[in-house]
Amino acid sequence: MVVLIHQFVHHPLHLQLSPPSLRTTSSRIRTSIISSSSSSSSSSMDPQINRPSSRFLEFPHLSTSHRNLMLDLVSTMETTLSSHLLPSSLPPDIQYFQNQSATSQGSLHIRSGNENSLVDCILGSWIHCELPTGGALDITTLTAYLNTKTDSPRFLIEFLQSSPKSLILLLDLPPRKDLVINPDYLKTFYQETHLEEQRKKLQNVTEIKPYISSSLYIRCLLSPTAITVTVDSEAGGPIRMEEIIRDHVGPVAKDMLEIWLNQCVSCGGREMEESEKVELEKRDILIKKKTVEMDLASSLPRLFGEDVASRVIKAIEKAFHI
Amino acid sequence: MVVLIHQFVHHPLHLQLSPPSLRTTSSRIRTSIISSSSSSSSSSMDPQINRPSSRFLEFPHLSTSHRNLMLDLVSTMETTLSSHLLPSSLPPDIQYFQNQSATSQGSLHIRSGNENSLVDCILGSWIHCELPTGGALDITTLTAYLNTKTDSPRFLIEFLQSSPKSLILLLDLPPRKDLVINPDYLKTFYQETHLEEQRKKLQNVTEIKPYISSSLYIRCLLSPTAITVTVDSEAGGPIRMEEIIRDHVGPVAKDMLEIWLNQCVSCGGREMEESEKVELEKRDILIKKKTVEMDLASSLPRLFGEDVASRVIKAIEKAFHI
Repeated sequence: MVVLIHQFVHHPLHLQLSPPSLRTTSSRIRTSIISSSSSSSSSSMDPQINRPSSRFLEFPHLSTSHRNLMLDLVSTMETTLSSHLLPSSLPPDIQYFQNQSATSQGSLHIRSGNENSLVDCILGSWIHCELPTGGALDITTLTAYLNTKTDSPRFLIEFLQSSPKSLILLLDLPPRKDLVINPDYLKTFYQETHLEEQRKKLQNVTEIKPYISSSLYIRCLLSPTAITVTVDSEAGGPIRMEEIIRDHVGPVAKDMLEIWLNQCVSCGGREMEESEKVELEKRDILIKKKTVEMDLASSLPRLFGEDVASRVIKAIEKAFHI
Repeated sequence: MVVLIHQFVHHPLHLQLSPPSLRTTSSRIRTSIISSSSSSSSSSMDPQINRPSSRFLEFPHLSTSHRNLMLDLVSTMETTLSSHLLPSSLPPDIQYFQNQSATSQGSLHIRSGNENSLVDCILGSWIHCELPTGGALDITTLTAYLNTKTDSPRFLIEFLQSSPKSLILLLDLPPRKDLVINPDYLKTFYQETHLEEQRKKLQNVTEIKPYISSSLYIRCLLSPTAITVTVDSEAGGPIRMEEIIRDHVGPVAKDMLEIWLNQCVSCGGREMEESEKVELEKRDILIKKKTVEMDLASSLPRLFGEDVASRVIKAIEKAFHI
């Protein structure tokens, strides 16, 4: 699930990205990226250590703080969930893709959960596209879907950056149940995890303002503690943006991922009646279908052409079982 | 369903109010209030014209624009729904109540729907309480619940005013279904009714800022086009507040009530399977129970004493069938 970006390009665009499967620490990942980037192969998946595509981990065009944060999140998620995940099986032309003129580039990484895991799949992506109006748009996403062994929330972080001084951030543990009729779920995953405190930390930064997605459906998908904000460092420029990501957004994102890993995944599955599982699966599938329909089906072809878009969407649909 | 006001009084407080049953126009209502207010009886329900308690329509301590808006909304709702509603049967000591020292005063008006109606009940209320810290708090609410002959959204407006220059407004058509798994419902009642345009009208007023309720449950209850804002006219003072209510909030609130009346109630019921009705009723009942539990049970006794609070809560529970 991702933000729509109608407001940034005259055609909507969107993609979901998913992280790799490193068993290394964050710093080791960074070292490996630096060393592997010289090989510049788009299919540099190393089966020995199940390392993700180096192209995915490049996170090109991002500032240092922004890239480091994404690498940290990917590393933490993949390290913690390493025993849950199957290796990536994406072909090279999905791990990295571009349009004919190379003005739009993207990378996708998907890993499905193994048989005993609570993880359905994790997806990471980045898209970089030069805009006809000048400038460029960068979208970076890391998201994780769980299966019906648990009803715990998903994890989502998405950056949508239209200039070095301006971005939109979506950071949330989107619920998998209707919170209105499940107040205990609200209590367990949102009140007792103190997610509201994380949201408030960012609220106090001058350059950070609430952001309301233009898509009503996306608003519905998010939790009541979702962080949906713009960061606008016009006065302080790119240096201030770096500070904000490093000192404010980064710690909150890392804390929220820790909360998700510790209290949504590591706590194990939950006993559910068969009918409850059926409802949960129906809801999960519908969300995935709407995600593809809203965010990808209309926008990817415009950015990458029909062939590339079709290939990428099919890979996501396969991982989504839809 | 109403906003929590933990942030204004050191104990939470809340009440729901419901409007009368006039068959007159708004201006005629106003005339009747002015003429009846001289009688100053708290039980001045006139069975001949089924006029609501004059105490309820007093809306004391509100500014002119604010009072006029509430009277207009009450009038429009009751006039349009006149054939749907039973007369009010509230005893005088619920139509108006106060604590021993008269520092807290309140009025409640409830009318249930008749046998053929889609209306479950409408509730209007006002509360005025002097704060120990000086100043006073005024809460004014008009809300309407529908029954299971339809799944259309409810209507809600609530003002929470802590000074002549500052208030919180909650204005919404709260959904009665999980919008995530009912995208058609989202389309019918929120996209095609263009409620987002109403929300955006207020967004453009300098003194109006987004407001986020401290209650996560209340955030969940609201629709994605809910107007939840603060109005802070510090610079322009009470005169500017009057202008904002008259020229901005008022038109939007009236439009939203029209949308609700025309597209949620007057469009008639909807064919639903029995299981769907059962689910709908379960959801409605849970929301009503949570409303009483969150907003009234802990706060009313503190403001009005146990006896008065218990009487008022019982009247609401009776109307709610809980």
